[in-house]
Amino acid sequence: MALIVMKFGGTSVADVARIKSVAARVKREVEAGNQVAVVVSAMAGATNQLVAWAREASPLHDAREYDVVVASGEQVTVGLLAIALQDLGISARSWLGWQLPVRTTGAHGSARIEGIETATLLHRLGEGQVAVVAGFQGLGPDNRVTTLGRGGSDTSAVALAAALKADRCDIYTDVEGVYTADPRIVARARKIARITYEEMLELASQGAKVLQTRSVELAMNHAVRVQVLSSFTDAPGTLVVDEDEIVEKAVVSGITYSSDEARLTLRNVADRPGIAAQVFGGLAEANVNVDMIVQSSSTDGRSTDMTFTVGRADLPRALDVLQGLRGEVGYASVSSDDNVVKVSVIGVGMRSHAGVAQSMFRALADKGINIQTISTSEIKISVLIAAEYTELAVRALHTAYGLDAA
Amino acid sequence: MALIVMKFGGTSVADVARIKSVAARVKREVEAGNQVAVVVSAMAGATNQLVAWAREASPLHDAREYDVVVASGEQVTVGLLAIALQDLGISARSWLGWQLPVRTTGAHGSARIEGIETATLLHRLGEGQVAVVAGFQGLGPDNRVTTLGRGGSDTSAVALAAALKADRCDIYTDVEGVYTADPRIVARARKIARITYEEMLELASQGAKVLQTRSVELAMNHAVRVQVLSSFTDAPGTLVVDEDEIVEKAVVSGITYSSDEARLTLRNVADRPGIAAQVFGGLAEANVNVDMIVQSSSTDGRSTDMTFTVGRADLPRALDVLQGLRGEVGYASVSSDDNVVKVSVIGVGMRSHAGVAQSMFRALADKGINIQTISTSEIKISVLIAAEYTELAVRALHTAYGLDAA
Repeated sequence: MALIVMKFGGTSVADVARIKSVAARVKREVEAGNQVAVVVSAMAGATNQLVAWAREASPLHDAREYDVVVASGEQVTVGLLAIALQDLGISARSWLGWQLPVRTTGAHGSARIEGIETATLLHRLGEGQVAVVAGFQGLGPDNRVTTLGRGGSDTSAVALAAALKADRCDIYTDVEGVYTADPRIVARARKIARITYEEMLELASQGAKVLQTRSVELAMNHAVRVQVLSSFTDAPGTLVVDEDEIVEKAVVSGITYSSDEARLTLRNVADRPGIAAQVFGGLAEANVNVDMIVQSSSTDGRSTDMTFTVGRADLPRALDVLQGLRGEVGYASVSSDDNVVKVSVIGVGMRSHAGVAQSMFRALADKGINIQTISTSEIKISVLIAAEYTELAVRALHTAYGLDAA
Repeated sequence: MALIVMKFGGTSVADVARIKSVAARVKREVEAGNQVAVVVSAMAGATNQLVAWAREASPLHDAREYDVVVASGEQVTVGLLAIALQDLGISARSWLGWQLPVRTTGAHGSARIEGIETATLLHRLGEGQVAVVAGFQGLGPDNRVTTLGRGGSDTSAVALAAALKADRCDIYTDVEGVYTADPRIVARARKIARITYEEMLELASQGAKVLQTRSVELAMNHAVRVQVLSSFTDAPGTLVVDEDEIVEKAVVSGITYSSDEARLTLRNVADRPGIAAQVFGGLAEANVNVDMIVQSSSTDGRSTDMTFTVGRADLPRALDVLQGLRGEVGYASVSSDDNVVKVSVIGVGMRSHAGVAQSMFRALADKGINIQTISTSEIKISVLIAAEYTELAVRALHTAYGLDAA
């Protein structure tokens, strides 16, 4: 007997027929003798509708009220799933964020879970009752409804699994697992059977949409065994585990890309100490996250060029900040380009293999793709390229690292 | 300066544009110097959708989970209205049933309000903040979401007005007030300026849909001054008040009808003591409410006919019960008819005027309408007639009692 957390996303609970098939899947786990807590998202499309209404009511809406509105979506699906489970003869009840409660910070719209009270829940699970828990929502310090931000239900599920010390956290989604690359782009992409937390974290933060980054961090910190699998088939999924559970480590496990990028270049910036601090300090104050940074070495000892990337949505704000800093920093001009994409190769095997970066640069050069900026971490190499080369680059790298399915 | 409760129904908050015009109406009251608490229903149609989903998930759904699902509708509108008010520069916040809390009994789906905690609310109102309170929902004794049943938001509003000792409870709806008859049937129906609680209670329970019966009872018991008015126009509405606030009492204030009726007749029931107790006791046990009852006097001293009405939805259940009682009670046959309508004339002036019933019977006879059953109270006369005569009967009575607009 195991205690498992099952999480179902919006497409898995998109209508009552699908909620009933989720109930049937939960029933199988119960009949296999497991204790089950289920975390659900809102029906696909419901959250978008609620967000649109909040924006229509006021573009500058109060985040506390926004949370009240959008949290209603999960309230609908927990009730319906509990009803569907009972209809199959399974004892079940719904739990809203404020009922458990799932305690969070007061950062409305992007709250972080601080703790989940589990005593009652564990007691009910022990009696054989299935707990149907609303994902994405919690209770803030002032007794108000909070939400965790987009994709937050993954985080709810992993946090619940950690709090319950669950044996497994199964994330059911509309794909069959984690792939070596986006199968819509790379026909020969393969499903990965096991992947390390570190790799999954890089994949998630570099554009793979299968799991929310924060949920992978949480899983890693609490050693929660996460499985990503499809709610529409019975195929085995991808297991996200600790590195020592993986014997054969791939040099490169996956290729990913992110279109959510914009590049900024400051020309002829004075080459003196403190300039970078002024520029990036100013951006940080305006809540603009800077990702890749490249500063060319000064040719004349007096000025340099500075290139960096920001989230595409932050570009107008970043340009504003830089305009304001012009007098202080003293650059000649600023240029920007949001027609760029960041392509990353990720793999824990990189640590022990030389030449991984070189293979990447050669594969891209062979296709005539110009690299604008490079950044690396221990298990990741990212390059910024023109957006039009996205598919070509991802496919070339997939082949170059020997990831293509036979 | 007054403390007022404003309540807006589903058609008044059917979309964001209407929610914005509700916000504008609330703003006017705030700017007139009033403290305002607003109670809102779900968007028109939202509750029906949620109920349909719950039924689809299981025809025998758990009432506690049903309440979780349907209460989400009001959660959406309170958040959106708070946002819309803030957008107009008005300080506002939403309150869900569990937040105040609105404490109710545990009768899920038809809970009764037991108390509303108002200390925090009064403090906030005193600071000039508008409270936007979710109607229809509350918190049960086991910390679970409850709902009050259809039309429950009226009751939420009146209960809140009573708890806050509000100066007025304004119920905004899609009609301009309470009419002498349904204006869709009687073109010359007039809006009533003032009506007594007792009359309003009879109107509501005899089919007028403008206010929920329970809310009128509550208003009467706590002497809450209720005003019914339109959220789409600025016309004066109808004030529901105590009898001594009305100088000129009409003999008949209004004519109403209810199609939610079915008639049952038991033929040749043994005429001995205890028979009625057996029949109506059995129906009560099966939760079938019996309304009008007529027992013909026995002609032969041994048997009699018994006619009564039940809610149309209860007819199959009532027939079942009667079938089961046949051996015990010993009637010859049972017949039923759900093609009937109950027409009622209501007015506090009846108490001091003779001949009101006679005028009713004559007016109906003049139109060739047969009366099947009659029941009366101190301020009401109801008759059961064939459904096809509904409009004819209501119009004839409206004219006979001099209610037609000039």
